[in-house]
Amino acid sequence: MAQADIAVIGMAVMGRNLAMNIAEKGFKVAVYNRSSARTDEALAEAGDLAGNMIPCHSIEELVAALKPPRALLLMVKAGAAVDETIAQLKPHLAKGDIIIDAGNANYRDSVAHDQALSAEGFEFLGVGVSGGEEGARHGPSIMVGGSKVAWERVQPVLTAIAARYQGESCCAYMGPAGAGHFVKTLHNGIEYADMQMIAEAYGLMRAGLGMTPSAIADVFEGWTKGPLASYLTEITVQALRTTDPATGKPLVDIILDSAGQKGTGRWSAIEALDLGVPASAIAAAVEARGLSGMRSLRQAVNGALGDAERAAIGTATPEIIAEIEKTLLTGKILAYAQGFDVLAAGSKQFGWNLPLAEIAKIWRAGCIIRSRMLDSMSRAYSATPAPESLILDPDFAGELKASLPAARKILGLAVANGHPVPALTSALNYLQQLRASRATVDLVQAQRDIFGAHGFERVDQPGAHHGPWHTGAE
Amino acid sequence: MAQADIAVIGMAVMGRNLAMNIAEKGFKVAVYNRSSARTDEALAEAGDLAGNMIPCHSIEELVAALKPPRALLLMVKAGAAVDETIAQLKPHLAKGDIIIDAGNANYRDSVAHDQALSAEGFEFLGVGVSGGEEGARHGPSIMVGGSKVAWERVQPVLTAIAARYQGESCCAYMGPAGAGHFVKTLHNGIEYADMQMIAEAYGLMRAGLGMTPSAIADVFEGWTKGPLASYLTEITVQALRTTDPATGKPLVDIILDSAGQKGTGRWSAIEALDLGVPASAIAAAVEARGLSGMRSLRQAVNGALGDAERAAIGTATPEIIAEIEKTLLTGKILAYAQGFDVLAAGSKQFGWNLPLAEIAKIWRAGCIIRSRMLDSMSRAYSATPAPESLILDPDFAGELKASLPAARKILGLAVANGHPVPALTSALNYLQQLRASRATVDLVQAQRDIFGAHGFERVDQPGAHHGPWHTGAE
Repeated sequence: MAQADIAVIGMAVMGRNLAMNIAEKGFKVAVYNRSSARTDEALAEAGDLAGNMIPCHSIEELVAALKPPRALLLMVKAGAAVDETIAQLKPHLAKGDIIIDAGNANYRDSVAHDQALSAEGFEFLGVGVSGGEEGARHGPSIMVGGSKVAWERVQPVLTAIAARYQGESCCAYMGPAGAGHFVKTLHNGIEYADMQMIAEAYGLMRAGLGMTPSAIADVFEGWTKGPLASYLTEITVQALRTTDPATGKPLVDIILDSAGQKGTGRWSAIEALDLGVPASAIAAAVEARGLSGMRSLRQAVNGALGDAERAAIGTATPEIIAEIEKTLLTGKILAYAQGFDVLAAGSKQFGWNLPLAEIAKIWRAGCIIRSRMLDSMSRAYSATPAPESLILDPDFAGELKASLPAARKILGLAVANGHPVPALTSALNYLQQLRASRATVDLVQAQRDIFGAHGFERVDQPGAHHGPWHTGAE
Repeated sequence: MAQADIAVIGMAVMGRNLAMNIAEKGFKVAVYNRSSARTDEALAEAGDLAGNMIPCHSIEELVAALKPPRALLLMVKAGAAVDETIAQLKPHLAKGDIIIDAGNANYRDSVAHDQALSAEGFEFLGVGVSGGEEGARHGPSIMVGGSKVAWERVQPVLTAIAARYQGESCCAYMGPAGAGHFVKTLHNGIEYADMQMIAEAYGLMRAGLGMTPSAIADVFEGWTKGPLASYLTEITVQALRTTDPATGKPLVDIILDSAGQKGTGRWSAIEALDLGVPASAIAAAVEARGLSGMRSLRQAVNGALGDAERAAIGTATPEIIAEIEKTLLTGKILAYAQGFDVLAAGSKQFGWNLPLAEIAKIWRAGCIIRSRMLDSMSRAYSATPAPESLILDPDFAGELKASLPAARKILGLAVANGHPVPALTSALNYLQQLRASRATVDLVQAQRDIFGAHGFERVDQPGAHHGPWHTGAE
């Protein structure tokens, strides 16, 4: 009876595809869903792979089907559903059994689950899985946090089902409980920024250069062969090439520009603030999605102030398109640098010792942000000592230096001509602040000393200083 | 013996000034500090006012000096010091006695204190006090949250010591525990944005127009007579007029441009994200302070990429200076609109029913962000129904409409010429996104459907939809 190597609980799209992936790699996988119909559907969909799948219609059946120590991978909705499922499983489990939360959990929940479960003698892994439906089925990127004993037990399965980049598995151990989901959260934060920046570049070509979606698809297709080569660039081509069957118009024009969001993008921005790490491009992307969903406010503001201008910034010459490519490249490097900085700060704060080079490596394939650039990032973080920021890696510094004039020019035009470019300008402003030998925060310090006696440091001598300040506004 | 109307605990600069303010208004105030020396210093400093002050050198003395029900106002460092002080006080108090935390508490701590103390029969108020040293002494803005019974008991004192705006006291009841400190937190978030925007405008005149601090002081002095009239504008004049006695240079040039920050700015940005309200200008200001403090990274990036360009954006003509004024006005209106939106969202989320018009009113004097504009904001929120956003108030909409062309022009020039303008551009991008009848988030939705089958809405029919998507990048 007890023949399954692992269980997958939750037969919605992600769980089902992950189970098929496991079965395909030669492991026996027990599958279970709260409502049995879904389990049967999953088996029917699995075809030949069903031979390696053991459908279970009760928790008792599921537990009986698993080789001890049992490994149970939950792919259910983050939050309450995870808590409920764990509560239902526990009475049936033995000490040493392993619960794996592979959903989009908040890393704090993973830390709490680990504490509670290990106190009861169970093992826990919090595992970030990225790659969507396709990734789950054919190879996602997998970020593992939690019990090392549990990791060793399930490593063969998780390593086998993960994506491969030039033969290397895109699954790795990140650190203690919480580390896996923290890394996955930042992956998604970076993903938000990357997608928003692509959308902004698209908007500039569409409204600023008057190009059609199909012509812009050609541009993005060209970019899949350069430094912007990535999965997101590729699917942008797909998106912009698609015609709506019902209307014959570009499908992108038929889609309501109001984006949904799960918690992870927002969590990234909150963690960044909490850790004191500026992640302005990620925050801008989260805000852009939030704003897009405020339909009634948008309509009212549009009515009161008129539409955003979005005037022409030029004509679609190869030169200006190359400058937009450099603008997007600048933004993208900086958004990733911000994301990695949050990882580094979290690692320090929580004592995780996150393997930054390894993270870049397992993001090279399988996950949504997979890209050529991540290979360079894994190289950058493999250096000894690792750079304090990706900006300081000589290759990225060189790319930024070469791209900055174009980014300034394009974003200056965008702002002047009324195009919303929140993520790209946030990224540029971040770099300009970091580069500045002298910012204007000296004035802020002066104000703080005037109203709150907060004191300031001087450039020419140590210690805390205060005014005296010129009195009165005269 | 028991003759004091209220106690002030904590004789650091804020507590000491608040106690003198209370004494001056004719109340008897018992004062106490952990180390007695400070209490004696406070009395010595108080001069004639010491007649209304009762120095206490032990908690027993303090408690004995107070009329029941005792009202004890804590002005100690937020966090552990508040917890410790409350723990020390409790054994000496009677049921119905009132503990007032008037420090810069996180509103969540105020909620927790209220729960714990009311369960033990005590009353609690979480009170936000803004105005710095001067405000504490001569009239701060006071935001009260917590027990209504306690509020009624201390209302005469708090109302009397608060600032006055055309005769009206700048002290008001905000709602249940947490509400007072939540409002104070957002006050500070707005303050961060306002100060950062002023610093950016200063930077544009300094580096972009080549003006001296003293010439820029003249500009800000002119602005104190227009729509930007505010305390922060006034102290900017002061700051820029001040010469360093040691070097004879403008003092602002001698101050290290590395700003400190307390928690409140960051908390504002986190609360905004948590509530799903875009507050990009506040977030940008928090980030700017964070970046300013990253000295070693800044030096390294400056070394690798060279200094920010900060090329000329023009010459200091009255026209361009008027355009910079309009840019700052645009940014400021939007930052305040964002802050009030966070207040509205928090009010809804926590069921507080925050009085937005009242908040604008009590911010018109006493507090750091006091300004002429807040009078217009109190008028805007007094309308029935209140506007969904300040942007939609006809007067502010009109001001934004009139200022937008200048803001786009100036910020376009700033970005193109390499000036860091993170808060001002974040504010502008926020407005441009809200105005846009159609943003580019449709492309984001397309990508999400391609990789995650998230679905999208259509502009021409209801329901959730999916591709089919053009396959492959070709």
